Amino acid sequence: MPFITVKVLEGKTVEQKRELVQKMSELVSDVFEVEKEKIFIFFEDLAPHNYGKHGELLPYLNTSSVEESGEQA
Amino acid sequence: MPFITVKVLEGKTVEQKRELVQKMSELVSDVFEVEKEKIFIFFEDLAPHNYGKHGELLPYLNTSSVEESGEQA
Amino acid sequence: MPFITVKVLEGKTVEQKRELVQKMSELVSDVFEVEKEKIFIFFEDLAPHNYGKHGELLPYLNTSSVEESGEQA
Amino acid sequence: MPFITVKVLEGKTVEQKRELVQKMSELVSDVFEVEKEKIFIFFEDLAPHNYGKHGELLPYLNTSSVEESGEQA
Amino acid sequence: MPFITVKVLEGKTVEQKRELVQKMSELVSDVFEVEKEKIFIFFEDLAPHNYGKHGELLPYLNTSSVEESGEQA
Amino acid sequence: MPFITVKVLEGKTVEQKRELVQKMSELVSDVFEVEKEKIFIFFEDLAPHNYGKHGELLPYLNTSSVEESGEQA
Repeated sequence: MPFITVKVLEGKTVEQKRELVQKMSELVSDVFEVEKEKIFIFFEDLAPHNYGKHGELLPYLNTSSVEESGEQA
Repeated sequence: MPFITVKVLEGKTVEQKRELVQKMSELVSDVFEVEKEKIFIFFEDLAPHNYGKHGELLPYLNTSSVEESGEQA
Repeated sequence: MPFITVKVLEGKTVEQKRELVQKMSELVSDVFEVEKEKIFIFFEDLAPHNYGKHGELLPYLNTSSVEESGEQA
Repeated sequence: MPFITVKVLEGKTVEQKRELVQKMSELVSDVFEVEKEKIFIFFEDLAPHNYGKHGELLPYLNTSSVEESGEQA
Repeated sequence: MPFITVKVLEGKTVEQKRELVQKMSELVSDVFEVEKEKIFIFFEDLAPHNYGKHGELLPYLNTSSVEESGEQA
Repeated sequence: MPFITVKVLEGKTVEQKRELVQKMSELVSDVFEVEKEKIFIFFEDLAPHNYGKHGELLPYLNTSSVEESGEQA
């Protein structure tokens, strides 16, 4: 406790996940005043064909717009 | 907001998911009076060996009955 | 199957939820070719103090902007 | 109803999952006084690189300690 | 690990939940060969107006049928 | 994207949640190189009678031990 789930578009590296686990555990331990040994973090990788937003499935979203380009990069 | 998760037995096509995202976004936008840009939809594909019902894991369920045959097709 | 979870900011009426269940069941039954009897829908009401976006907890978000005002109404 | 999700480190066999579905359905049916036909069980397999605890991602956790060795075996 | 979530229609007593935690921990420990100290169980109480099935929100479902009466009791 | 869920024993203050949202958004934005506007954070408050660990429901856990006392405070 706490139990944290991070759902993210697939493609993040193991190094990024490791860094996030380390820093997020530190942060949650500080703010919630709980030992790091009681913090659990889960990642869920989301494939583009399993993610819809703005009324469209991600692979079909018009990515020419500035707004979308960052996320899918 | 809202955030919608659709857990479904694996095997649905990208076209089916796309159609569902388009129509479900339209529907939720209408009923909840929220812009489509604020609706997020996630699919979770469930493998048969990760799904149990009626006291049995799906691959071992007797599928000769009419009741089950539709779902696993 | 499928199992659908709708996480939404609290405040939706029972009538809105009922309408969504009826129409969403119809829609999912059509697109995934599954009987309505096999579709389950869950709502999760989210309190504003349990929802953060744009780097801020919802009750503290500047709602004067057009972009935010719709969602919290 | 009820709907049970079992998130577990990947590597469990289909036989283990089957045994758990059978016995867990029996147990839940008894304690909650509900027919087995109304119980649904889902497994979620967790890859080691998607699981962090004790402030570290699992593949980088020092496993020489007695405490950890059991879980990762 | 494992982490188990039990979503159930509200109304279960603390005694029922306690009994389920005790017996489910025993069971999962046996089948998955994991210490009970590594098992976490969460309950999610579902209000009837947050649960839809058979194309209808639960409070509006025709409960005169034998099939439904057990679950809502 | 990403979508982060923080399940925590009830009792955290709005101020703690606000601080966590602010700092966690900053952190995730840095590590995953994503704009803060695309990060969503949800809290789920867990009542003690809905949480079991070590084979027992939390309200019945022996809290005299050093190990448990921190978490329930």
